[in-house]
Amino acid sequence: MNILYENDTIAALATARGNAALAIIRISGKNAFNSVEKCIFPTIKFINTPPKRLQLFTIINIEIKKAIDEVTAIKYENPQSYTGENMVEILCHGNEIIIEEILSQLIKTGVRIAEKGEFTKRAFLNGKMDLLKAESINELIASTNPISYLCAIENYYGKSKNILLDWKAKIIKILAEIETRIEFPEEDDVIDRKSTYRKDIESLSIEIEKELNIREKIKVIDSGFMMPIVGIANAGKSSLFNLILGYNRTIVHHEEGTTRDAVSEEIKIKGEKIKIFDTAGLNETKNSVELMGIEKSWEYIKNGNLLVFVTPANKEILENEKRILKETNKEKIIGIISKKDLNNPIQKKEMFQTFGIPFIEVNLIEEEERLRIIDFISSNIKKAFNLFNSESSIICNKRQEEIIRRTESKIKSIIQNIDQYYDEIISNDLKEILYNFEEFIGTTDNEEILEAIFSEFCIGK
Amino acid sequence: MNILYENDTIAALATARGNAALAIIRISGKNAFNSVEKCIFPTIKFINTPPKRLQLFTIINIEIKKAIDEVTAIKYENPQSYTGENMVEILCHGNEIIIEEILSQLIKTGVRIAEKGEFTKRAFLNGKMDLLKAESINELIASTNPISYLCAIENYYGKSKNILLDWKAKIIKILAEIETRIEFPEEDDVIDRKSTYRKDIESLSIEIEKELNIREKIKVIDSGFMMPIVGIANAGKSSLFNLILGYNRTIVHHEEGTTRDAVSEEIKIKGEKIKIFDTAGLNETKNSVELMGIEKSWEYIKNGNLLVFVTPANKEILENEKRILKETNKEKIIGIISKKDLNNPIQKKEMFQTFGIPFIEVNLIEEEERLRIIDFISSNIKKAFNLFNSESSIICNKRQEEIIRRTESKIKSIIQNIDQYYDEIISNDLKEILYNFEEFIGTTDNEEILEAIFSEFCIGK
Repeated sequence: MNILYENDTIAALATARGNAALAIIRISGKNAFNSVEKCIFPTIKFINTPPKRLQLFTIINIEIKKAIDEVTAIKYENPQSYTGENMVEILCHGNEIIIEEILSQLIKTGVRIAEKGEFTKRAFLNGKMDLLKAESINELIASTNPISYLCAIENYYGKSKNILLDWKAKIIKILAEIETRIEFPEEDDVIDRKSTYRKDIESLSIEIEKELNIREKIKVIDSGFMMPIVGIANAGKSSLFNLILGYNRTIVHHEEGTTRDAVSEEIKIKGEKIKIFDTAGLNETKNSVELMGIEKSWEYIKNGNLLVFVTPANKEILENEKRILKETNKEKIIGIISKKDLNNPIQKKEMFQTFGIPFIEVNLIEEEERLRIIDFISSNIKKAFNLFNSESSIICNKRQEEIIRRTESKIKSIIQNIDQYYDEIISNDLKEILYNFEEFIGTTDNEEILEAIFSEFCIGK
Repeated sequence: MNILYENDTIAALATARGNAALAIIRISGKNAFNSVEKCIFPTIKFINTPPKRLQLFTIINIEIKKAIDEVTAIKYENPQSYTGENMVEILCHGNEIIIEEILSQLIKTGVRIAEKGEFTKRAFLNGKMDLLKAESINELIASTNPISYLCAIENYYGKSKNILLDWKAKIIKILAEIETRIEFPEEDDVIDRKSTYRKDIESLSIEIEKELNIREKIKVIDSGFMMPIVGIANAGKSSLFNLILGYNRTIVHHEEGTTRDAVSEEIKIKGEKIKIFDTAGLNETKNSVELMGIEKSWEYIKNGNLLVFVTPANKEILENEKRILKETNKEKIIGIISKKDLNNPIQKKEMFQTFGIPFIEVNLIEEEERLRIIDFISSNIKKAFNLFNSESSIICNKRQEEIIRRTESKIKSIIQNIDQYYDEIISNDLKEILYNFEEFIGTTDNEEILEAIFSEFCIGK
């Protein structure tokens, strides 16, 4: 595949928009050097500079020969470049006017503005990287939290590829076994015979399922970790909500709910984006509007990633509070017993202890309590995140997930029907899985598929 | 001044924040190479790479030795660098997590995050550039319109310095003349004697005043060119406002006024930011709320940079319309006679012609008119801008402006009092002006002044 992908030369801003000390404009293609030569000064210095050596130049307006900016520039000679084509990187001052002016000069020389992901697409088509690496670069740039970044960087360095190659090898081994048996059928019992490779298929199935589970968890974090504050009315939920916000200076987004809906804020705790919700109190009521709010609260209890369960020291344990404990995975609850000065809440302490739920007793109105409360919540958020952080996923986008889901259902159907299926059918199904793995790794040259993949990228990459 | 400025090593993101293909992290100072060596792999390759040569590396977490990102890096050896110190530029993937991780590693090696403008401050203190160039770099980055960019790039290449040196030379010449006369007083008439250098001082005063005028105009553009649409009620102002917005796809900011206040939108026409205002109609009224709106309209008429004066063909010229013409510089008015189908507005055409105000007759409700109206307005905006565009200013910030204003008032007082002043007083005043020019060029080593200047810069520069 080591041929030049297209004949035209492309250019784009490769750094983020906005005023800054520096910006980088990338040019790639057959005419990259020629084009830059037409708007760079001194031209002869540029021509004589060896590849990968940075020098100081002036970019000039081609028509009126006036200086646009003093820049540094680097040449990359095909195939020793990101795209595998001739490339130039111009480091100019980070100002939109300058960037537009420089790109305008390049356009005058016949360069066109790159499409999304076109640099990486060319790199892929010129054999500079496989599809998984290309996709991981996109994820590296786009990731918004430590865990997706971790996935991206590990896959960039080949983790997903290695695992897929391993899975491929396992399928090939099983296939070889089956094919041998098809050609040389033996006398032993069919069921027995199948049990020898059933185990291999099952263990592969477990591995695949595990990867899909990790993927699910990461998707939760990607869409924002949800931390609802729940409990009965007058437990101190809103005070706690405000206390957390008051401490936290990095409020990302404010969103007013309707009267009975939850108020939410997006904040950052320990570098993680957290959505906290002040939910409606779980009262016994016949009022239909209030009931709607309470219905919503139960949804938050169900979907939250970490529940902050606030309960006042001066009240009995209510039915709705018991229901929270009954209907929820206890691992995702932390307890806060409020109004500790009003009573010694022996029952409530026992309730949390029984279920192994971490809790503290506080007075939400006391300033000195703040730090203790924040510390308690922070450390539990950290713990909740550690559940995720331990593992990165080899699946880093929808395309990859779809392939693995397809594979999972195929492999499950094999396992389910293994006793009834002829060897030939199983062999066929396994070959399909093998094909799925190849599709994942990206041995495709279907232009439409590639188009779809690279159009997800940002311009300049 | 060619000594290293400070002993510590600094680092910062040099490109804009945001997700992008690439970002640049700059490190400068005595330990720049040592620090990077501790978190780059392969270390030996980095050590052996000659300056200004770009190579591929991996940045690793110093403690857990895991890859953070694959990057390219360039070394610059003191004094062949931007700051005049040892420097490294790391080109990493443009993601905040990656940038923070890399900066964290550098901090672990003893590097600290740079203050605003600290790279350029070091460049200045190490004699790599004069203050005017340093300031022009800041303007290059910060400029938001073509004219401030033009000032910045021309001053970057020395325009302001050359003019200031020229002014300095003129003052020195006059001073020499005066000093000679002080030492060898002749018999001729004092007034006559002074008239020989009075001309030189006056011509310099004119040059300085011209520069201050250009600066004033540029400040107008910097704060946004204001184009109010004005006229009596029912002239078609709102229709015109919507017509301009409808055509223009680059609405930057929408701002609803109170009922009687002006509605404004920021748009771009020919690359220039324009604020258009739909003002309240200039009615005869006793209603106090309406009166407030009309009061506002008169303010817009007074402060607008280009007035679009809309007047209907089917009405007599009203008093308030005459007042617009009476109270405004005619050069900043363009006329639109609306509802042309309802009447032949001979009077109104004459009115505009008398004052040399460009105008067109239109029907605002007709689709076909749109392009003609937009063309008319665009070309007049362009004309209005050409008044500015012809000249760039040597004054590109408050510091410089303050010095030149101080100089202007001093030179004016000399001219005013030249006949009464002794030669010695004039000589003294001229020396003060000479000192002002030196201050402008930046021959200062007052740490406080420098602090104030460079703190205006962005981080990473």
